Amino acid sequence: MSNVIRINHVAIAVENIEAALDFWRDGLGLEVTHVEDVPDMESVVAFLPMGESEIELVKSTSPTSGVAKYVDKRGPGLHHICFEVDNIVSYLERLKSKGINLINKEPVIGTGGKLIAFIHPESTHGVLVELYELTTQEPQIRLARARHLAERTIAQSQAVASGVLAFLRRLRSDDDGNGVEP
Amino acid sequence: MSNVIRINHVAIAVENIEAALDFWRDGLGLEVTHVEDVPDMESVVAFLPMGESEIELVKSTSPTSGVAKYVDKRGPGLHHICFEVDNIVSYLERLKSKGINLINKEPVIGTGGKLIAFIHPESTHGVLVELYELTTQEPQIRLARARHLAERTIAQSQAVASGVLAFLRRLRSDDDGNGVEP
Repeated sequence: MSNVIRINHVAIAVENIEAALDFWRDGLGLEVTHVEDVPDMESVVAFLPMGESEIELVKSTSPTSGVAKYVDKRGPGLHHICFEVDNIVSYLERLKSKGINLINKEPVIGTGGKLIAFIHPESTHGVLVELYELTTQEPQIRLARARHLAERTIAQSQAVASGVLAFLRRLRSDDDGNGVEP
Repeated sequence: MSNVIRINHVAIAVENIEAALDFWRDGLGLEVTHVEDVPDMESVVAFLPMGESEIELVKSTSPTSGVAKYVDKRGPGLHHICFEVDNIVSYLERLKSKGINLINKEPVIGTGGKLIAFIHPESTHGVLVELYELTTQEPQIRLARARHLAERTIAQSQAVASGVLAFLRRLRSDDDGNGVEP
């Protein structure tokens, strides 16, 4: 039987990442390790790890995304929780056998190449739950995507406030040329 | 400077603990280590650990509790997130110096004897955040409270469904007589 290993992340829907960092980085003292464009979720995500888990600040980039609809309805706040499991396929089979309503009946490829699936809140007593299985490609893919975002953001001179932009510049300057292409 | 060590727990407001365990224990496969009466929060809490963190299912025992008001307004779901810090007093000083709105300006004694303080969602971009510092007394106090709840629940034949009641019976039978009194 597959097991839950840990809380991988808790996602917080925000209206503005730079404003949210006033608390989550400068107040609480967490470090932002990377900021990543997640086209599949129509969002930009800032990652702030602590211990074996992460806080993810999720900002919608489209008025029709799931995160945008959530914020419109409930305001910014706790959005979903993600658990790492050791075998997502066997997990989903077990949940299906129990009649649990899965948003993703089979694993899909999430940001960074990982395998993910969401469980519908109607089967979890109101919580959007994500399951996640690490794949060996994930660290490389994640680094490549972060570099890609840094290049695009700086090249286009997007309206990113100073903290995030400085982070992206550092990320670009750290590029050693050995990463996989995005 | 004090640091965030880990996510201690993610609290989920539920309307019925036994019903919620259908997903969180039987579906997701987490183990319920204990169920605890938390008079200060006017709640009963089921604890389901994984990795270095816990899921807490929180059921209000009063229609006027914070959790009851939350469920009335938003329905059951993600309620708050708690971070363990190594020095809660210095943490609160830093947050105060940054103008962050604290629900508890000084640490209060939480369940199990730990030191806790809540930060107001208006300063965190919509998330109720709890800070927590472990004290050396906590394990003993927690065990004693769990035993006390087991005694009271069984003695009063409260309407607790089979799973929770069986757990409480096992807890009582495990009593080795060395715990501190509640």
